[in-house]
Amino acid sequence: MTYCVGLYLKEGLVLLSDTRTNAGVDNISIFSKMQVEEVPGERVLAMLSAGNLAVTQAVWNRLQEGVRLNGARHTLRTVPNMFRAAQLIGQAVRDQFEADGAALKAQDVRFDISLMLGGQIAGEAPRLFLIYAAGNFIEATTDTPFLQIGEHKYGKPILDRAVTFDTPIEDGVKLVLISMDSTLRSNLTVGMPVDLLVYRTDGFAVTLKKRLTEEDPYVRLIREGWSAALRQAYLEMPRPDWVP
Amino acid sequence: MTYCVGLYLKEGLVLLSDTRTNAGVDNISIFSKMQVEEVPGERVLAMLSAGNLAVTQAVWNRLQEGVRLNGARHTLRTVPNMFRAAQLIGQAVRDQFEADGAALKAQDVRFDISLMLGGQIAGEAPRLFLIYAAGNFIEATTDTPFLQIGEHKYGKPILDRAVTFDTPIEDGVKLVLISMDSTLRSNLTVGMPVDLLVYRTDGFAVTLKKRLTEEDPYVRLIREGWSAALRQAYLEMPRPDWVP
Repeated sequence: MTYCVGLYLKEGLVLLSDTRTNAGVDNISIFSKMQVEEVPGERVLAMLSAGNLAVTQAVWNRLQEGVRLNGARHTLRTVPNMFRAAQLIGQAVRDQFEADGAALKAQDVRFDISLMLGGQIAGEAPRLFLIYAAGNFIEATTDTPFLQIGEHKYGKPILDRAVTFDTPIEDGVKLVLISMDSTLRSNLTVGMPVDLLVYRTDGFAVTLKKRLTEEDPYVRLIREGWSAALRQAYLEMPRPDWVP
Repeated sequence: MTYCVGLYLKEGLVLLSDTRTNAGVDNISIFSKMQVEEVPGERVLAMLSAGNLAVTQAVWNRLQEGVRLNGARHTLRTVPNMFRAAQLIGQAVRDQFEADGAALKAQDVRFDISLMLGGQIAGEAPRLFLIYAAGNFIEATTDTPFLQIGEHKYGKPILDRAVTFDTPIEDGVKLVLISMDSTLRSNLTVGMPVDLLVYRTDGFAVTLKKRLTEEDPYVRLIREGWSAALRQAYLEMPRPDWVP
């Protein structure tokens, strides 16, 4: 499995993905699930992927080659805006389904992917999308300023409670790492290292892209600090004095 | 859906279940998912259930009527020990599958249940089991002193971090309520009120069985206190000073 999370904040976007892929529990590898296209001064787009690795890699290759949308061939470097970028990815997913869907079905393999697209193209504000296996998609809004794909449940409670559109970027980085830590701790199919991308609004260049390993001092601080903080928080809550 | 959690502690057992059942999102009802058999001075057994309500109710009815196991008819009031009690429930599940499995399959309804059994029968220590739809089961141990059924992912991180076999009962009550709160907050198909059962080792009587509503002062304290504690904990973690 996979866990990817994206925050849609006033100050910009924070994207985090794990790198574990597994075919069964005895065939585990490291693959980046974060792909970036950057045209400095003009656009930054990042795609995060969950699900069947052969499918997600094929979709990314199609996007590199160019995908036909509304009669014209486009890549993420040529689409005019983020909505078209999300449509283009959706079309690449549909093209891949047309190519592989029947063969996968014959082997009882599900065409099971989900993708996240975040970025900004000059002329509009940053946007964050979640693209489904059917090629349709939803977009994060100020009401729900985060999206998740893959093993999303373990890391959702902290996001539900703490993320708002006004959360500063640095707190956003903290929160996605806490959310990832909760997932890593409880589910073996999500694994370190993780890829972090920070994009500040109107920067039109990647602000930070960093691979964080288990040994990274800040990752350790989050891991140990958050565990300690949770234990402390629960110990400090009053005990039920009504239990006989 | 459902969320039920059981702690297997040195001091005894703590069991908590929600009460929401839903057929789609527009047909929501309250049903207790906790059934108790008590023979004061001799045994206490509690069964928690998740999954298809028609199936879990039928299983409970079979158990009331008596289930044939190894040539003799038993109920949870007559089995000689907890292992046999888990076997008996497993048998009731299999009998129900034999009765309903084909008809459910014809309607594309999955025979989808899981059950938890906790309790103590004089002559041995308290035990806690998780029984699958196939009628087989696992048992909690001192290494992993909790079990969950239903929507278990949201509420697992806090249990992974805080529950040990030596956790006191009162802290156990706190922890299952925090775990439930994380689930309620993030998943609409799990709902209040909740049923709490506390059993102290060698008590051979239910120590406490209580339905807790949203208005219960301790539930409110957990809900508001835990949200505030989480937010506080994350704010107190150092910010990443390496984000440009």
